[in-house]
Amino acid sequence: MTPPRGTVNDDAIRIPAATVGRQIEAVFRAWDMAGELIAPTVAAMVETDLRGVDSHGIAMLPRYYELLREGVINMRPAIRLVREGPVTGLLDADGAIGHPVSLRAVDLAIDKARAAGVGVVGVVDSNHFGAAGVYALRAARAGMVGLATTNAWARAVVPTRARVPMFGTNPIALAAPAREHLPFVLDMATSTVAVGKINLCWYNDRPVPDGWVLDEDGRSIADPARAREYIYQREEGGLTPLGGTPALSSHKGYGLAAAVEILAGTLVGATYIGVSRGRRSAKGRYNIGHLFMAIDPGAFREAGAFEADLDAMIDALHRTPPLEAGEPVLVAGDPEWTSTAERERSGIPIPRRLAERIRWVAGDCGAAYVLE
Amino acid sequence: MTPPRGTVNDDAIRIPAATVGRQIEAVFRAWDMAGELIAPTVAAMVETDLRGVDSHGIAMLPRYYELLREGVINMRPAIRLVREGPVTGLLDADGAIGHPVSLRAVDLAIDKARAAGVGVVGVVDSNHFGAAGVYALRAARAGMVGLATTNAWARAVVPTRARVPMFGTNPIALAAPAREHLPFVLDMATSTVAVGKINLCWYNDRPVPDGWVLDEDGRSIADPARAREYIYQREEGGLTPLGGTPALSSHKGYGLAAAVEILAGTLVGATYIGVSRGRRSAKGRYNIGHLFMAIDPGAFREAGAFEADLDAMIDALHRTPPLEAGEPVLVAGDPEWTSTAERERSGIPIPRRLAERIRWVAGDCGAAYVLE
Repeated sequence: MTPPRGTVNDDAIRIPAATVGRQIEAVFRAWDMAGELIAPTVAAMVETDLRGVDSHGIAMLPRYYELLREGVINMRPAIRLVREGPVTGLLDADGAIGHPVSLRAVDLAIDKARAAGVGVVGVVDSNHFGAAGVYALRAARAGMVGLATTNAWARAVVPTRARVPMFGTNPIALAAPAREHLPFVLDMATSTVAVGKINLCWYNDRPVPDGWVLDEDGRSIADPARAREYIYQREEGGLTPLGGTPALSSHKGYGLAAAVEILAGTLVGATYIGVSRGRRSAKGRYNIGHLFMAIDPGAFREAGAFEADLDAMIDALHRTPPLEAGEPVLVAGDPEWTSTAERERSGIPIPRRLAERIRWVAGDCGAAYVLE
Repeated sequence: MTPPRGTVNDDAIRIPAATVGRQIEAVFRAWDMAGELIAPTVAAMVETDLRGVDSHGIAMLPRYYELLREGVINMRPAIRLVREGPVTGLLDADGAIGHPVSLRAVDLAIDKARAAGVGVVGVVDSNHFGAAGVYALRAARAGMVGLATTNAWARAVVPTRARVPMFGTNPIALAAPAREHLPFVLDMATSTVAVGKINLCWYNDRPVPDGWVLDEDGRSIADPARAREYIYQREEGGLTPLGGTPALSSHKGYGLAAAVEILAGTLVGATYIGVSRGRRSAKGRYNIGHLFMAIDPGAFREAGAFEADLDAMIDALHRTPPLEAGEPVLVAGDPEWTSTAERERSGIPIPRRLAERIRWVAGDCGAAYVLE
């Protein structure tokens, strides 16, 4: 099965968020997912699509179906809190899909931060959790500075000086609450671009920009079909770390990918794909790890002072003189808030090709198809 | 006073680390620095020079002298722990130089992590603290995953789409303990390059690479003298965020700079230079903030498991097939460990021009000059 072909919306149908949620729920029920996991997973995926992170919402459903059929995802897991301290916790996901156990982990981190000022909760033996920003934002909505990270199973990012990929796109998300403004939400892969952007080039027959994808000799690949071949099929080459080229400090993006691996993987006991080379764990799973942190500003400042200062920062950034009139300086989270408002009104755009793939998944597993 | 002219070592004298320390100490005594602050500050600065971070060790002494004469640094501060919770703390540096209060803060974070699994300690009303990696490494030497960040006073980094700088080079450092290997130490400005690299181009009459420094219209500046003018004197233009160009995702480096500002500035109540535009606080200081975090791997894993897995990651990265034979893939911290070993043997290289400036500082404040 090839991955979803990107997120181009020019041939998309617009589907109300509630309908997208019903579609995902129908498929999960057909997969015999444990009842208590369905609602939180659906909510996280729909929120991701509303926020415009098209690659990480319903577009993941065909991939999750593939993982289910491979026996990698456990639909009826016994999720357990296996370690707990006053400010820390470790959840064993027992091979669950990542979203519901991650929501539980961030909620536990928030509870601990309310009591002690800080909470740090890890998850081990998990799977793809969707968009990291959803979990950091959940902490920010609870008044906390929230941090969310995950490691990954697919080797995609090539370290500076290397021929082969040694990390996934290992994302970092940090969110923080303001008062007048919606929360600050940074949610970024530590690669120059996410895989979805390469798919978008391919879909639109546009060349891949220099510094996004490298071949086995470290040369940029412009042809999108060849770039995808390197990402999905070949052992060598792949995405560049943030920075793109050694001259533009790609070693920093590579260092960030390693730092995320240490926090979300090594610290919780997840599998590092650079050592296992993609082999599965003894249980036949990928053993992905996540880490969530919540910090209560009230542990450091008077009530409201943090939020007021963040408002002032956001205002100052928005007022910064722009290079081009009509292209204002944005703050992390702005595009996602714009997308959310627009899509709550007009529905979530589902590209025709994705709709066809969802229809096939639904038919194959015996779920209703409700997208049109 | 112009800043130190970079770190070129071709005309450098080699000075034993102990002598560099004695020189810094002599100057601090002449500045009437409180006795208990001298030894930790000297140790942090010498370690920075040993690690090869030439821009942040003794080379800062002329700048600190300038700040002292401007009344920005308080040499006899009343450093106080103004807030404390079970895992959090906030130190008011009372305008101290950043190093000793930062060492105290990271030690407090380590103590709290030993007791509770995590410690998060902030510092407010501080000054330049040297290299962030020194503090993260201190936590790693205590067996913790260490995180260190600071905001900055000098506006240097231009957000994506903007004409003017709105952040300092807001660094992130993360360090982690291994068993066979020396600790992992990532220490990076969130800009594409640090200011020191522009000075190096200027010193060597080499063009500044594309994507490092932008003018007021967002165009790369190749002429190093003009680039320095934009960084040091002009209101517009400056360093790019990591990523370098919008096509290579400079918005991610910009987002990281903002995230560091939130953690090290907003959270602790430090001044954000994008709002204050470089004005000093009511006390006539810059009110720089830092944040330090220590996480005990023992809160998540069996004893030794984290360190063994990090060893395996470092080994895998070192064994990664390189693009060029003889240019092996490095791990964050490797260059600094190599520098430390070499400089402990052969001394710290002090460029002639820097030595002259130190001689002038020593003479002007009545300290002995002991570098040669």
